[in-house]
Amino acid sequence: MITRSQVRSAQERAAQMLAQAGITITPEECQNIEVAEFGLGELEKTGLELVVYINTERYCAKELILFSRQTCPEHRHPTVAGSPGKMETFRCRWGQVWLYVAGDPTPVKQGCPPAGSEAFYTVLHEIRLNPGEQYTIPPDTLHWFQAGNLGAVVSEFSSPSHDESDVFTDPRIRRIPEII
Amino acid sequence: MITRSQVRSAQERAAQMLAQAGITITPEECQNIEVAEFGLGELEKTGLELVVYINTERYCAKELILFSRQTCPEHRHPTVAGSPGKMETFRCRWGQVWLYVAGDPTPVKQGCPPAGSEAFYTVLHEIRLNPGEQYTIPPDTLHWFQAGNLGAVVSEFSSPSHDESDVFTDPRIRRIPEII
Repeated sequence: MITRSQVRSAQERAAQMLAQAGITITPEECQNIEVAEFGLGELEKTGLELVVYINTERYCAKELILFSRQTCPEHRHPTVAGSPGKMETFRCRWGQVWLYVAGDPTPVKQGCPPAGSEAFYTVLHEIRLNPGEQYTIPPDTLHWFQAGNLGAVVSEFSSPSHDESDVFTDPRIRRIPEII
Repeated sequence: MITRSQVRSAQERAAQMLAQAGITITPEECQNIEVAEFGLGELEKTGLELVVYINTERYCAKELILFSRQTCPEHRHPTVAGSPGKMETFRCRWGQVWLYVAGDPTPVKQGCPPAGSEAFYTVLHEIRLNPGEQYTIPPDTLHWFQAGNLGAVVSEFSSPSHDESDVFTDPRIRRIPEII
């Protein structure tokens, strides 16, 4: 759960980070920045801010904003009604983001799962993305990501987005926010 | 036709414009900036520079760079082998771009077809895009675009891209460059 005041504050911080990254959004997009709190009540640690530019039946593009060390929790995009799960390309635009995928665990990682939630972070192969670097996640594969100390702005290019179908490793997580 | 030296020069100018727009690309992407000269031998007037970030069977994302008043000529993305033509969203990131689509011709337009090629520009309804503004082109519909005086950097989010299938109104145009 998150309050309207917390949402507004997170939207303002995300808008400032976009401006810092040289990315212009419209006043309407600014008012509609999505604040994904994931139901854990710890937005600073586990959360994500999003500007959805376009989401059609053919493709999707978003800007993702992460505060300093903020984490988007581990999840996958499953096949739904015979349609293959979402495939997505993350391109770092500003700051630094660490992406975790299946593979040999990276021995010395830059990031780490949020304290208290370690059990729900099972893929630990680290991909470090600096501005201009990108990585593509195949459908239905586990992944999570965390920003570096400055935070991060990341462009996401993908097949159509159906957030409500995402499967999170942590059963406490609610993708669709409950604003009180 | 275009010489290697002209390609290199256009790549350098495009890279400078991306830097000015605050958009970081990798050294490899910089070396591979595509210079579309369209076969008319007038790159300054009729041409386009592109960085293709990702082009899969499910989606595509590119950065388009246009020099001052440079024009991407009128074309459409047809149905090919039963697959619907490319659908694309143009989002202006820097500078200004004028997009022309079917509809009532705009009485006082900001841009104009390149001199000598007016006959091959048949859709004249103008959409003006400033940074942060975007417009989505349906499949198989004619469109062309031109940058303002400063030039433009435009993100293109789309369904998969098959440039070789594009249909240009001007029969002289060759989409795939011939470098001499």
